[in-house]
Amino acid sequence: MAKKIVTMGEILLRLTTPGNSRFVQARSFDAIYGGSEANVAVFLANMGMESYFLTKLPDNEIGQSAINFLRTYGVNTDYVVRGGERVGIYFLEKGTSVRPSKVVYDRKNSSICDIEVEEIDFDSVFKDADWFHLSGITPALGEKCIQLVEKAVEYAKKKGIPVSVDLNYRNKLWDYAEFEKVMVKIIKDVDVCFGWIDDDSEKGHKIADFAKQGVDLKGFKDIFSSMKKRFNVKYVVTTLRDNYSATHNAMSALIYNGEELYQSKKYDFTIQDRVGAGDAFAAGLVYKLVNGSDYKDALEFATASCVLKHTVEGDFNLCIESEIMAITGGNTSGSVQR
Amino acid sequence: MAKKIVTMGEILLRLTTPGNSRFVQARSFDAIYGGSEANVAVFLANMGMESYFLTKLPDNEIGQSAINFLRTYGVNTDYVVRGGERVGIYFLEKGTSVRPSKVVYDRKNSSICDIEVEEIDFDSVFKDADWFHLSGITPALGEKCIQLVEKAVEYAKKKGIPVSVDLNYRNKLWDYAEFEKVMVKIIKDVDVCFGWIDDDSEKGHKIADFAKQGVDLKGFKDIFSSMKKRFNVKYVVTTLRDNYSATHNAMSALIYNGEELYQSKKYDFTIQDRVGAGDAFAAGLVYKLVNGSDYKDALEFATASCVLKHTVEGDFNLCIESEIMAITGGNTSGSVQR
Amino acid sequence: MAKKIVTMGEILLRLTTPGNSRFVQARSFDAIYGGSEANVAVFLANMGMESYFLTKLPDNEIGQSAINFLRTYGVNTDYVVRGGERVGIYFLEKGTSVRPSKVVYDRKNSSICDIEVEEIDFDSVFKDADWFHLSGITPALGEKCIQLVEKAVEYAKKKGIPVSVDLNYRNKLWDYAEFEKVMVKIIKDVDVCFGWIDDDSEKGHKIADFAKQGVDLKGFKDIFSSMKKRFNVKYVVTTLRDNYSATHNAMSALIYNGEELYQSKKYDFTIQDRVGAGDAFAAGLVYKLVNGSDYKDALEFATASCVLKHTVEGDFNLCIESEIMAITGGNTSGSVQR
Amino acid sequence: MAKKIVTMGEILLRLTTPGNSRFVQARSFDAIYGGSEANVAVFLANMGMESYFLTKLPDNEIGQSAINFLRTYGVNTDYVVRGGERVGIYFLEKGTSVRPSKVVYDRKNSSICDIEVEEIDFDSVFKDADWFHLSGITPALGEKCIQLVEKAVEYAKKKGIPVSVDLNYRNKLWDYAEFEKVMVKIIKDVDVCFGWIDDDSEKGHKIADFAKQGVDLKGFKDIFSSMKKRFNVKYVVTTLRDNYSATHNAMSALIYNGEELYQSKKYDFTIQDRVGAGDAFAAGLVYKLVNGSDYKDALEFATASCVLKHTVEGDFNLCIESEIMAITGGNTSGSVQR
Amino acid sequence: MAKKIVTMGEILLRLTTPGNSRFVQARSFDAIYGGSEANVAVFLANMGMESYFLTKLPDNEIGQSAINFLRTYGVNTDYVVRGGERVGIYFLEKGTSVRPSKVVYDRKNSSICDIEVEEIDFDSVFKDADWFHLSGITPALGEKCIQLVEKAVEYAKKKGIPVSVDLNYRNKLWDYAEFEKVMVKIIKDVDVCFGWIDDDSEKGHKIADFAKQGVDLKGFKDIFSSMKKRFNVKYVVTTLRDNYSATHNAMSALIYNGEELYQSKKYDFTIQDRVGAGDAFAAGLVYKLVNGSDYKDALEFATASCVLKHTVEGDFNLCIESEIMAITGGNTSGSVQR
Amino acid sequence: MAKKIVTMGEILLRLTTPGNSRFVQARSFDAIYGGSEANVAVFLANMGMESYFLTKLPDNEIGQSAINFLRTYGVNTDYVVRGGERVGIYFLEKGTSVRPSKVVYDRKNSSICDIEVEEIDFDSVFKDADWFHLSGITPALGEKCIQLVEKAVEYAKKKGIPVSVDLNYRNKLWDYAEFEKVMVKIIKDVDVCFGWIDDDSEKGHKIADFAKQGVDLKGFKDIFSSMKKRFNVKYVVTTLRDNYSATHNAMSALIYNGEELYQSKKYDFTIQDRVGAGDAFAAGLVYKLVNGSDYKDALEFATASCVLKHTVEGDFNLCIESEIMAITGGNTSGSVQR
Repeated sequence: MAKKIVTMGEILLRLTTPGNSRFVQARSFDAIYGGSEANVAVFLANMGMESYFLTKLPDNEIGQSAINFLRTYGVNTDYVVRGGERVGIYFLEKGTSVRPSKVVYDRKNSSICDIEVEEIDFDSVFKDADWFHLSGITPALGEKCIQLVEKAVEYAKKKGIPVSVDLNYRNKLWDYAEFEKVMVKIIKDVDVCFGWIDDDSEKGHKIADFAKQGVDLKGFKDIFSSMKKRFNVKYVVTTLRDNYSATHNAMSALIYNGEELYQSKKYDFTIQDRVGAGDAFAAGLVYKLVNGSDYKDALEFATASCVLKHTVEGDFNLCIESEIMAITGGNTSGSVQR
Repeated sequence: MAKKIVTMGEILLRLTTPGNSRFVQARSFDAIYGGSEANVAVFLANMGMESYFLTKLPDNEIGQSAINFLRTYGVNTDYVVRGGERVGIYFLEKGTSVRPSKVVYDRKNSSICDIEVEEIDFDSVFKDADWFHLSGITPALGEKCIQLVEKAVEYAKKKGIPVSVDLNYRNKLWDYAEFEKVMVKIIKDVDVCFGWIDDDSEKGHKIADFAKQGVDLKGFKDIFSSMKKRFNVKYVVTTLRDNYSATHNAMSALIYNGEELYQSKKYDFTIQDRVGAGDAFAAGLVYKLVNGSDYKDALEFATASCVLKHTVEGDFNLCIESEIMAITGGNTSGSVQR
Repeated sequence: MAKKIVTMGEILLRLTTPGNSRFVQARSFDAIYGGSEANVAVFLANMGMESYFLTKLPDNEIGQSAINFLRTYGVNTDYVVRGGERVGIYFLEKGTSVRPSKVVYDRKNSSICDIEVEEIDFDSVFKDADWFHLSGITPALGEKCIQLVEKAVEYAKKKGIPVSVDLNYRNKLWDYAEFEKVMVKIIKDVDVCFGWIDDDSEKGHKIADFAKQGVDLKGFKDIFSSMKKRFNVKYVVTTLRDNYSATHNAMSALIYNGEELYQSKKYDFTIQDRVGAGDAFAAGLVYKLVNGSDYKDALEFATASCVLKHTVEGDFNLCIESEIMAITGGNTSGSVQR
Repeated sequence: MAKKIVTMGEILLRLTTPGNSRFVQARSFDAIYGGSEANVAVFLANMGMESYFLTKLPDNEIGQSAINFLRTYGVNTDYVVRGGERVGIYFLEKGTSVRPSKVVYDRKNSSICDIEVEEIDFDSVFKDADWFHLSGITPALGEKCIQLVEKAVEYAKKKGIPVSVDLNYRNKLWDYAEFEKVMVKIIKDVDVCFGWIDDDSEKGHKIADFAKQGVDLKGFKDIFSSMKKRFNVKYVVTTLRDNYSATHNAMSALIYNGEELYQSKKYDFTIQDRVGAGDAFAAGLVYKLVNGSDYKDALEFATASCVLKHTVEGDFNLCIESEIMAITGGNTSGSVQR
Repeated sequence: MAKKIVTMGEILLRLTTPGNSRFVQARSFDAIYGGSEANVAVFLANMGMESYFLTKLPDNEIGQSAINFLRTYGVNTDYVVRGGERVGIYFLEKGTSVRPSKVVYDRKNSSICDIEVEEIDFDSVFKDADWFHLSGITPALGEKCIQLVEKAVEYAKKKGIPVSVDLNYRNKLWDYAEFEKVMVKIIKDVDVCFGWIDDDSEKGHKIADFAKQGVDLKGFKDIFSSMKKRFNVKYVVTTLRDNYSATHNAMSALIYNGEELYQSKKYDFTIQDRVGAGDAFAAGLVYKLVNGSDYKDALEFATASCVLKHTVEGDFNLCIESEIMAITGGNTSGSVQR
Repeated sequence: MAKKIVTMGEILLRLTTPGNSRFVQARSFDAIYGGSEANVAVFLANMGMESYFLTKLPDNEIGQSAINFLRTYGVNTDYVVRGGERVGIYFLEKGTSVRPSKVVYDRKNSSICDIEVEEIDFDSVFKDADWFHLSGITPALGEKCIQLVEKAVEYAKKKGIPVSVDLNYRNKLWDYAEFEKVMVKIIKDVDVCFGWIDDDSEKGHKIADFAKQGVDLKGFKDIFSSMKKRFNVKYVVTTLRDNYSATHNAMSALIYNGEELYQSKKYDFTIQDRVGAGDAFAAGLVYKLVNGSDYKDALEFATASCVLKHTVEGDFNLCIESEIMAITGGNTSGSVQR
C-alpha cells in the first residue's frame, strides 16, 4: 500500500519571464506555484505516494489556484488552512551561459505568516503517516511559523514518524545565529538532515561553503561525523555541485550513515530550470528510504532525480520512476523514446 | 509650449489572465503597470504635455519595470523615489457578457506606503507646473500617504497651481467616515472635483449611488450646487454610465460650473478593457482645461476619451487627439483608416 | 457534510484552434479535456461536493493528463480504470457571428469502448453516494458501454441512489431507433431526465425539434406529461434556446414535476464558448436537488449556471456559487468586482 | 472539369498587432500575406478552381514565404516572377467598437513596381483560361504596372477570356484624375465591373460616395445604366454597407445587367476581420459566373461570401461552398456543427 | 528540367508540447504534419524537384490541413486519395540533456490503413517519374498497406524507375519476423537501401545494433557486402550516430557500392529537433543521386542535410541547397549571414 | 553628475522569427527596434548616463513605436526628427549549432536617408556633451547621411567633444573604396576607433580579415601602430572572436594606445542573441572612458559587456553595471541570484 507522507511549508506564486528574457523585457509572466516542501509533496504524489501538504493560503482565487496546482499532480490538500492576506510571490528571470538566474522575492506577510498552531488538525493529518518532511525555510518566515514547525516536529517524533529536514539556509530570509538557534532543536534526532551545521570553535556552528574552501571527502566525513554525534541524525546528506555556467553543471551527492561516507555517481548536464532541484533530491531520497531502500540506492536515485529535474520547466520534478531508473542505470544518451 | 502637469499616486503591477480566462485557468499573466494617476500622466504625455509622475518604487527590477513602462509613453519619472519593500499588485480577470471582471488586490505594504514627505523635492517638481492632479486612492493607502497628499495639495494651492481631484472612493480601501474626513480638506478650493460628497442631513455626507436611486438632472444640479458652496470647487464633474453587461455599456457625463449643468453626448459601445476609463475621462478634461478650452468642449472631449479607452487593452488610453476628435465629431462608424 | 455524487462517461482531449481561427489556419491547438459527464463532475467538485468520475483511460501520458485535468478542479479519480488504446479526441473550431462552431470527432476506439463491467468496483464507488448522473452519449459508444451503463443504473436504482440522465442524443453517434431502444430502459424510474422522448403514434417515439416546430408551453406540458406517465420520471427538464448567431443567444428553461410546468427567467447573452453549456445546466440542477432545493429554485440556478458557462472558455463551468446566485438575483450588469 | 482563372496583382506582407492591441503596444506582429487579387485567387482555389496568380516577388525568404502562403491554399504560383527589391508591407491594427482599424502602408518600391511586361509568359498563363480578374490597385503602383495591366487585359480580351475588374480606388495610392484616365480604358468591354465611375457633367466622372449622399435604388440604376452605356460592361456590381461600428455592420449588394437592378438579401453581423471582404465578394461572384450561374444567384452567393469573410481572421475567405450556401439558405444561427 | 520523384506513405498530425515542456504540463500543442516519406517529399520539393506524395487522408478539415501543409512547401498532392476515418497522430515531447524525447503514438485505424490499391492511379502518378522512394513504416500499417507497397514497388521496377527504401524498422509497429518477410521482397533489386538486414546464421536475418556491439568498419563492410549479394541492392547506406545526450550528438555516414565502403565527414552538433533527421539524410542522398552525382558526394550532401535538419523545428528539413553545401564545405561556424 | 553622450544613426524595426524557427515557418515576428548607435545609446542610458539619440523617423505609429522603445530604457529622444517615408526593417532568423543566423534587409529609402543637415539643432544637442559616438553604417545610407555625419563629427571636434567611431563595415551596404574615402576623413583625430583600416601598399587600405589570415599579436600591433600614425586616433580597439558555432563562441579584445597593445581576458560562452554584441562592446568602452577609467579597465569592462550581451534577447545589452563587474571579477558560474 502506498506510504503516507506529510510535508508542510509555504507555496508561492512563481512569476517567470518568458524564455530567458530579462525582467525589464517582460510583458507577461508564466504563472505556476512552488516552494521547497510543496515540490517534495508533488514528487512523492507523482511516485504514487499518499502525499499531504500543509500550509495556509488566502481565501481568494489566487490561493485557490495554488491548491488546484497541487491537486493537478495528486497532492492531498484537504488540510490546507484558508485565510490570511496573500500568496507569497517570487519573480524569476532564468539566466543562461554566464548570466545567472535572478530571483526577486515578494513573500512577506503571506498567509502562512499568520498561521496559528491550532488551525492544523495534527491528529488527523499525521494519522498513519509514514514520514514527515520539512525545510529550514518555514521557520524563517516568522515567529508563528517557528511555533508551527516546532509543534509539528515534536508531534511527529512523539508518534514515531520518521522526520527529514532540509536545512535550506537562505541569508536573505534570516541571519545565521537565529537560524542555528531554531534549527539545532529541530534536527535533533531526525532521520535525515540535508545539509549540515558546522561545529567550528572559532566561528561557532556554521554552514560551511565547501565549494570555495576546497574541502575533500575526508573533510566531509569529519563534519558529518560531528553532526551525527551532536544531533543524533541518522543520515547526513548533501549534493556536490560544479557550476560551470547558468546552463551547464555537474553534480554528485554524499550520504553519511554514521559509519560510512558514500558518494554517488557524478553527472554532467545542461540546465533548463534549476529551481527545485534540491527538492527533487530530497524527495528522491525520502521516497526510497520510506519504501525501504538501502541508503546507497536511495542516494543514487536522489541524485538522478535531482539531475533530471534540471531538464524540467517549473519547480516540480514531473518525472516518473522508470525515467529516473534509466538515469541511474546509466542511460543518459537522450535517444528518442518511441 | 507644452503645459507641465504633475500627478502623484501609486502605480501597480497589473497581472491579467490571458483573453478572458478565469483566474483558476491562468498559466500566465499579462504584465503591465497602471494606477489612477499614472493613467492620467500617460494620457497627458501622449497628448504632448510635459507630464511628471510622483511615486515611490522599490529599488529592484520590478520597480524599474514600472518606471520603464511610464517612460515608454513619455512620462517624466526623474522625481520618482526609490526604496521601500514592493510594488503593489492587482490581479485582473476580464469578464464578458453577464460575467463581471474581477480584481484581486495584493497592494498592502507597497513602497509608497513608506514614503516620507521629505523624500519629494516639491520645489523642483512643481517649478513652472501648470496643473496638479491626484485621486482619493492615495490617501487611502495609509497615514504617510495622507501626509504626502495634504502637503502636496497645500503646496500646489499656495503656488497657485490649479488642482484636480478624482474622489475615486473604494470601500475596500477605507471606510467612508475616514474618507470624508480626509477628502473634504483636500477638495477645498480645487478647480475640478470628479465625483461628489453628498450633504445629506440624515445620512451625513455621502457619495450617493445615483444609478440605483434614479436621480435626475435636477437632482444632480442640487447636489453639485451644494458641493460648490461647501467646498468652493470650480467644476464638479461626473460620468453617467449604463451597465448593460461586462462588454456593453452606454455613457455620458455631466459638468457643473456653479451655474449651469451641462450634459455631454451619450455613446453606446462595446468594451475591450474597462479599467482606467475613469482616468481617461479625468485626463481628457484636465488636458482641455489646462490648454484653455471651454468647459463644455472639455467635457465632450473627456467623454469621448473615456469611451475610446474602453476599446484599448490595459490601463492607459493610448489614443491620439485626432482619434478622440473624430469621436466627438460623431464618427463612431469604425471604418478602416487606410 | 458534502454530498457524494458519482458520474460516469468518456472524457476526451479537446483540441481547439487559437482564438476563432479556422482549422486550416491552425498551427497549434489549445489542449484541454472535457466530456458531458466529466463537465458535470467538475462543476459539482467546484461547488464543494465529493465528486467521483468513472471512466477508462489509457496508461500513457495523455491518459494521465486527462486525470490530472480532473484532479485540478477537485474531482476524485481514484476509480478511473487505466488501459485500452487511446484517449478520444474532438477538434473544435469556434465560430463567430454567422459562422458556426465546428466539431470534428476522432473518438472511435477510445479506451472506454473496451471497458469491462468488472473493471469497476461498484460497491466502493457507490458507497454512501447521494446521486448518480450519466448521459445518453456513453451507451452510444458501443456494446460494452451499453452494458456498463445498464449495470451502473441498475445498481444505483437498487441501492436507492437518485439518478439523473441527460439524453443528449447525437445523430452522428448512433441512429435514433437504437438510441430509443437503449434509453427507454435507462430512464425508467429515474429522478431527472434532461430532454425527452416523444410518443408520436405516427413517427414513433422521437426527440422532437420544437424550435423548428413552434411548440408552445401547452405543447411541452403535453409531451412531458406523457414522458412522466410512460417512464415514471420525477422531473422532465429542458432548456429553450434562441440562436441569433454563434455569439449571441437567449435562453430559458422548463421543468415539469408531473403537475406543473415551470419556466425560468430568460437571459440574453453573448458567447465565449458554448460547449458544455448543457452540462452546466444539468450540473446546476443536480447540485440544487441533491442539496434539497425546491425544483423551481433548482431550475433558476441551473439556467443561470448554463448562461454563465457561455462566458467561460473550455468545457467546464468554473464559476462559484455566489457568481451564479448573482445572476439569478438579477445582476447581469457585469460591473467590475473590485 | 475545374475552371482555370488567372488573377494578377501585388501580394503584401501583412503585419497585424496581436488581438486588437494598438501599434504602440505591439511587441510582435502576426505575419500573413494578402492583397486584393491574391485574396480572390485563394478563394477560387479553395472552391476547387485551377487558380493562377501572377506577380513579382524578391528572390529572398520573405518572397518565398509569400509564395508558400499562396500554395498552402492551392494557388498555382508557377508563373510568379522572382526579382526586385522587396515585398510590400502593410501594418494593420484591428479596431473594435468606436475605434476604427488602422492601416500603415509601407509598400513603395516593392518588386512588382519593377516588373517588365516581358517577364510574364502570357501565352502559357492564359492558355485555356476561363476568366481573368484584376483590380484598380495594380495600375496605381506605377508606370510599369500600368503597362502590365493594359497588356494583360488587352491579351485576355483578344483571346475572348472574360474579364472582371474591381475598381478599388484608394486615394492614398493615386489621384482621381490619373485613376480615371487609366481605368476607363481597362473597364471598356469587360464582363464585370465592381464599383463604378460616375458620369457627372459638373464634377467629371467620379466614384460617388453614395453612403453619404443618400442615393436610392433609382439613383443607382441611373448611374449603372450610364456605366453600361459608356463602357459596355456586362455587369455593374457593388456592395452596400452600413457601418455601425468597427465590429458591427450590415450589408447587401446590387447587380445591374443592363436591364434590371437586383438587390441581394441584407445581413447583420459582427466583425472579426474586415480586410479582404470586398475581395471575397468579387471572388464569390466570379466563381458563380464562371461556373454558369444566374447573375442573381451569383450575387446572393457573393454577398454571403462577403459576410462570412468578416468572421475569418486574415485577408482570405477560407470558407467552403457548403458554408456559404448555408448562409444564402438563411441559416445564420451559428449552431454548433457537430 | 526538374526531376519527378514519387514518394508514398502516411502523413501524421504531430502534436508537440511547447518548448520542451512535459506532456503533463501542456495546455497546448504545436500542430504540424509529418511522416517519413512526406518529409522526404518536402525536402525534394524544397530543392526544386517535382515532388509527388501519395497517401490517403480523411475528407475532413484535419485531412485538408495535412494536404495544405504539404502544398505550402511545394509538394504535389493531386493524387492523394480522400476518405477513411482519421488522420494518424503522434504526440511528441522534446527532451533535453539527459531527458530523452518521448513519442506517444495514436495512429491506428488511420485512413491509409483502409487504402485499396485501385484507389491509386499508378499510370498517371508514375508517368515520367525519375525515382520512387518509400519506407518500411508503410507496410507495417496493415495488410492493405503491404499490398499497396508491393504493388507500387513492382510497378516502379517494371517501368525501370529507380527505387530507394528506408527500412526504418520500428518494433512498436510490427515484430521482426513479419518485417523481414515483407521487406526482403521489397528491397530486392532496389537502387538504395537505407539500413540493412543482417544475415546471421544463428540469429537469422536481423537489423543489428552496431552502436552497442562495437562493430567496426570492417564489420560493416562484411554485412553490407552480404546485403549486396542477397538482395542485389545498388547502394547500402547508413548513418552512424553518437548519442551524447538528447541535445548533443555526433554523426557520420557510410555508403557501400558493392566494392568500396565510403565514410563521410563526422560532425558534432547540438539538437533543436531530432525527428525527421533520418529522412533528411535519405532525401539528401536521393536528391544527389537522381541528379547524377557521384555516390560519395551524395553521401556527404546527405550527411550535411541530416546534421542541418537537427537545427530545424518540425519534421521537415527546410534548408536550401546553398546552406547544405556550406556545411559540406566545412563552414559550421554559424557566423551571421547578413 | 551623469555624463551626457550623443549618438546618431538609424534605428530599424527588427522582425525576428519566434524561437529559432526559419523564415518560411514564421506566422509571426517578434517586433523590437535596434541599430548600432541606438544600441549604444540604450546601454549608456541604462548605465545612468544622459543619453541622446539622433535620427529621423516617419510621422506614423511605427516611427512612434521606435521612439517609445528607446524611451523605455531612458534614452532622450527630444531631438529625433520626424518625417520621411518609412522605418527601415531587418528580418532576423536566429540560427543554432551549425546553422547560422540570417538577416534579410529591407532598409532602403528609410526616413534617415532623407535627412537634411539643417533638421538637426546641433547647438542644442551638443551643449555640454561629454562624448559623441557614431558608426560607419550611417554614412553608408546615402549622400545625405554622409553630409550629416561629416557635419556632426566636424561640429563635435570643433567643440572639443571626444568622438568614437565604430567602423562597422558592411559589404552589402557599400563598396570598400567608397567606404574608405568617407571614413578616413571621419576617423581622423578621433578618440576611439573600433576596427581599423589597413595600410597595405599592394591591396591599398583594407579592413583585414585576421581570423582567416592568422595574424598574431605582433601583427595587430603593427597595424594599429600604423592606424595611430596615419589618423591620429587615440585608441584603436577590436574584439577577437572564435566562432565555434552559431550558439557557441569564445572571445577576447585588444586595445592599443599608441604604445602598448593590451589584451583582455578571454571568455567561452553560449549565445542567445548575437546581434548588438559589438555595440555592447563599444558602449562598454565609451562608458568607462567617459567616466575616467583606465583604458585597460575599460577594455575588460567592454569585453564583459559584450560577452553578457550574447545572453540577452534583442539588440540591447540590458545589463546593469554590477552584473558586468561580476563577469570581469571572474564569476561566470551562473549561480542563482536569490
